[in-house]
Amino acid sequence: MTKPFVPRYDNGGLVVAGARPHRWPAMGLARPAGTALLVVGAQRSIASQCAGASYVWETISALVAAMRPWGAKIAWARHARSPANASCPVLPPAHGPERGPAARRPGDLVALAYGVDGFSASPLAEGLRASGTVHLVIAGFGLEGPVHSTLRTASDRGWECLLVADACAPFQPDLAPGALGMVEMSGGLFGVTATAQGLLSALAAGAAHRGEQAV
Amino acid sequence: MTKPFVPRYDNGGLVVAGARPHRWPAMGLARPAGTALLVVGAQRSIASQCAGASYVWETISALVAAMRPWGAKIAWARHARSPANASCPVLPPAHGPERGPAARRPGDLVALAYGVDGFSASPLAEGLRASGTVHLVIAGFGLEGPVHSTLRTASDRGWECLLVADACAPFQPDLAPGALGMVEMSGGLFGVTATAQGLLSALAAGAAHRGEQAV
Amino acid sequence: MTKPFVPRYDNGGLVVAGARPHRWPAMGLARPAGTALLVVGAQRSIASQCAGASYVWETISALVAAMRPWGAKIAWARHARSPANASCPVLPPAHGPERGPAARRPGDLVALAYGVDGFSASPLAEGLRASGTVHLVIAGFGLEGPVHSTLRTASDRGWECLLVADACAPFQPDLAPGALGMVEMSGGLFGVTATAQGLLSALAAGAAHRGEQAV
Amino acid sequence: MTKPFVPRYDNGGLVVAGARPHRWPAMGLARPAGTALLVVGAQRSIASQCAGASYVWETISALVAAMRPWGAKIAWARHARSPANASCPVLPPAHGPERGPAARRPGDLVALAYGVDGFSASPLAEGLRASGTVHLVIAGFGLEGPVHSTLRTASDRGWECLLVADACAPFQPDLAPGALGMVEMSGGLFGVTATAQGLLSALAAGAAHRGEQAV
Repeated sequence: MTKPFVPRYDNGGLVVAGARPHRWPAMGLARPAGTALLVVGAQRSIASQCAGASYVWETISALVAAMRPWGAKIAWARHARSPANASCPVLPPAHGPERGPAARRPGDLVALAYGVDGFSASPLAEGLRASGTVHLVIAGFGLEGPVHSTLRTASDRGWECLLVADACAPFQPDLAPGALGMVEMSGGLFGVTATAQGLLSALAAGAAHRGEQAV
Repeated sequence: MTKPFVPRYDNGGLVVAGARPHRWPAMGLARPAGTALLVVGAQRSIASQCAGASYVWETISALVAAMRPWGAKIAWARHARSPANASCPVLPPAHGPERGPAARRPGDLVALAYGVDGFSASPLAEGLRASGTVHLVIAGFGLEGPVHSTLRTASDRGWECLLVADACAPFQPDLAPGALGMVEMSGGLFGVTATAQGLLSALAAGAAHRGEQAV
Repeated sequence: MTKPFVPRYDNGGLVVAGARPHRWPAMGLARPAGTALLVVGAQRSIASQCAGASYVWETISALVAAMRPWGAKIAWARHARSPANASCPVLPPAHGPERGPAARRPGDLVALAYGVDGFSASPLAEGLRASGTVHLVIAGFGLEGPVHSTLRTASDRGWECLLVADACAPFQPDLAPGALGMVEMSGGLFGVTATAQGLLSALAAGAAHRGEQAV
Repeated sequence: MTKPFVPRYDNGGLVVAGARPHRWPAMGLARPAGTALLVVGAQRSIASQCAGASYVWETISALVAAMRPWGAKIAWARHARSPANASCPVLPPAHGPERGPAARRPGDLVALAYGVDGFSASPLAEGLRASGTVHLVIAGFGLEGPVHSTLRTASDRGWECLLVADACAPFQPDLAPGALGMVEMSGGLFGVTATAQGLLSALAAGAAHRGEQAV
């Protein structure tokens, strides 16, 4: 599709009209000061178990490169096993020493979680609250695992979520359609999905409208 | 399959050998005093949106009828919209007056949740803790919604979970295979699945072994 | 003291300059749309165990009468015992049928908690979040019990709290000075305290400035 | 008092008969496998703000030395400011590099919290659950701050708590009586208190009874 989304924009505000099953945000606009890009499972030990991880890292980098200058908060969730579920197979047993993703910058929010859910035993909720985030763009590794659990909790706690479908790498490619379908077919139960291109186009259109150089 | 499960049993303990992707519990036995059957989305307003709800109510009733005399705790999670996500489409806006499911008995654990996740803004964790539950059998309505969110949180918080596949009704039948696949194909990330017959056979075999009338 | 507080005000914003150990809010102004009055332990079964409950109900009623027309959200936390702590002596075993406080109105936030802490197993956080609350005025019953636990959690979760000292009734009068001292002497660890008169004067001064009838 | 406590003991079980306002545990015995000693605020940045910190470290070391060989889990909570309450005066802004307390050993539970409450945005609950803890002995730094907040939440979540009065250092000595009084005078609202000597005597008496060398 050459033009899958019809972005609307206003004075720095963002709307992704082609999100499924409905536009995002559902009403009004996402403002930079109230929006965060949250990258879930942002660590080698998880990404290395995912299909298409290299491509997804590139896509996430493009999202970060566009959303950071727009003014969104950039947040990274890392996971270790919950102490209460020590046999959890896909998560590392502890938060090890780590070289951050290339796209990470000082001042980004980094939340260490204990569990599949990025909100589990982590300061993620408090960090997002402190930054004034109400609109949450979600990407990351383990689409049907950490990404989905984090999306579900974010939605229950009141963040209005946009899952960027092709900026998420699944553990099992067979499970990706179902993971996306649960979002798209449920009428907005856990937020909505869009493509990275749809989000980037909406951002670029807003920038052009404002007379800025498109990011 | 005429005999899909090979139950093993010992002195009131339960093991479902044919659970996927591995036996349940992973080690040892589930004892009655440490086991609960949790029925998620146990309310007309959710069940009425699900495919196959009547059949699933019958299956759940059979599970309750078998697990209650065995000694397991029976728990029911009901959901209203999280106040922070007031547009959530599938959940009722508030906990209304309600006639409990026919299978409910005084002394059962009933937890009112605000959110898709049965643990969200609810006393479910405290109630399960008070009853000494460590092994959790999960069934209910909204397989890809409330059931999955509750399963994910239960697992992060340390309950060892068995999802009874055919005792769960999906909102969208197309999404059921993916919802079960996420459990079965992930190596135990959120527990394991079994069929109702597999669980009932394991319970009955244990009862026969103990000289009781099979439930 | 005839004039213990020096209110400052601006366009509907509120500041209580005489709060201890520092002004409230610490910076800027509390706006009606971002402010809630939270009454903790707002139920007969708790109030009846408190010293000075009648006087405190009157004081709380005056606060409600002033803050509601100003535009603040009014929130009420009610408590039952946590299922995990069933021997808790001062809390009722379950949420019974209840006639709300006279000052309660439809549209107020009512959160049922299971535990001494109003945030425990309750939708209080989600309800406050949904109303956009960032500044929290706290009053209620069980100063050293439910009120203090709720204040502590509210502060950890990012609400900037003002405890109205004489709108709180203690279980044990001997413990009131310590409960207030923990707030006032800790440099703002859990927020600040003020008197009801100090808060009402600040509200009235703002109203006069705006040409309204003083509340 | 030369003999303030009358320990009773049975086959490795512990009871502190002189705890206030009632014996601990309220019923039955605390077994080593179900008991943890939790040291709150166990870090130089908090201890250095407390009155009597050196003495309290010695007392805590004696408790660790007695409870570890008995078989209790040893747990340490460290605190940084909640991201949502970044101005919190007594907590360090982040978890810095740290030399553990001398008494810490590999295998101890260490939980990093974000907030005054050791359960806030931390894996403390999951860690205690994983170790099978039901009875919790609490000591540490910031009696009226981190220690009290952690005690309150532990109690709401179902751990039966014993606060060791003289193994806690307050920020403000004036506030210590009130902090202890809130526990002792409330009929068990947040657990009970005992002295270190009372706890050590009960442990030693049990050891002597079992023919072990008194610890």
